[in-house]
Amino acid sequence: MTDGPERTDVSRLREKASTDRSALNALLDSVHVGHLGFIRAGSPVVLPTAVVRDGDRVLVHGSTGSPWLRHLAGSAAVCLAVTAMDALIVARSAFESSIRYRSAVLFGTCTSLAGEQKSHALDLITDTLIPGRVAEVRRPYERELAATLVLALPIEQWSLKLSTGWPDDDADDVAGNAWAGVVPVVTSYGAPLPAPDLRSAIPVPPSVHRL
Amino acid sequence: MTDGPERTDVSRLREKASTDRSALNALLDSVHVGHLGFIRAGSPVVLPTAVVRDGDRVLVHGSTGSPWLRHLAGSAAVCLAVTAMDALIVARSAFESSIRYRSAVLFGTCTSLAGEQKSHALDLITDTLIPGRVAEVRRPYERELAATLVLALPIEQWSLKLSTGWPDDDADDVAGNAWAGVVPVVTSYGAPLPAPDLRSAIPVPPSVHRL
Repeated sequence: MTDGPERTDVSRLREKASTDRSALNALLDSVHVGHLGFIRAGSPVVLPTAVVRDGDRVLVHGSTGSPWLRHLAGSAAVCLAVTAMDALIVARSAFESSIRYRSAVLFGTCTSLAGEQKSHALDLITDTLIPGRVAEVRRPYERELAATLVLALPIEQWSLKLSTGWPDDDADDVAGNAWAGVVPVVTSYGAPLPAPDLRSAIPVPPSVHRL
Repeated sequence: MTDGPERTDVSRLREKASTDRSALNALLDSVHVGHLGFIRAGSPVVLPTAVVRDGDRVLVHGSTGSPWLRHLAGSAAVCLAVTAMDALIVARSAFESSIRYRSAVLFGTCTSLAGEQKSHALDLITDTLIPGRVAEVRRPYERELAATLVLALPIEQWSLKLSTGWPDDDADDVAGNAWAGVVPVVTSYGAPLPAPDLRSAIPVPPSVHRL
């Protein structure tokens, strides 16, 4: 092992902090699994949750039977992370190899929604995850709404980090024989699979077809 | 809006807790972006990080310039969540629609690796993210190792939740006209893109080709 050629910026980070609210919105509108952190009995806890942006807030929902959601409805401090992994950055050295990603981290406290706001929020969640689905299904029953908690986290305190770009190798490595580039990560939907108990005459609906 | 047909199990959760260590390993070996939660100045913080399993521990790494990694090296309590979103579960009602996922949550404190262990861990991280890459690139320089922190979180305290299965609609809804099924989420790699400064004679290496 050698010290390698001199380099003064070895501990720099490729990522860039961004204050671009439209880039934040674009991330929140394209990734719908978030990770919600909070403190329970003095210890950090992180749980995955579906997330949907509603203007200047992010909606989280779940069962009223969920202890942690009830905990968050009581205005505990939370941190919500939403991350997209866009590509592998394959550099000429292991050290310079990394990941192209977009990372949003929001801080704040949640408000529990009720009544018309809650009902509207649930429709928005459904139509964001499966656009057009609300018009294809029955309205929620009163007991279903009662069994669901919807929390809203305001988009006020947040940070956004964007790692884009290409491998940034030492001049020695660029002159060498190793390959360098980027391998995109592609996330898509596969062909829909009908439920085992689906009645045979029912076709795939437009909302699912469009996914 | 109506109350809907009676149903006693309306707040049940479809997810199942699992104590299957091999299912935990399978998840940790297939998803390499995790979310690490910790407490900073009394508040919860969640940050995304690359994660790689090394036997009975999970490796996290980053720059020594990262204040939060240095904080975690000091044995702060952490919670690491690793989540796979496998499919949309499209039920006949919005209420029953959900997500097929696998969710691991690990709790503990991290140990900072040094010397041979650290070097071995970095090779494992590289070869897990891009199998075969270590043999294709030069060894890390001493200054690169010095600029990198590698933390290990033991797989001791953990919980695993698996949401598999199909829509579980009310009998009334099953008898109705709405479609139900599952739409798989597929994550794959796109075609490799060469770096702008790549020398023209260098072909895509086997490690990247195999991705």
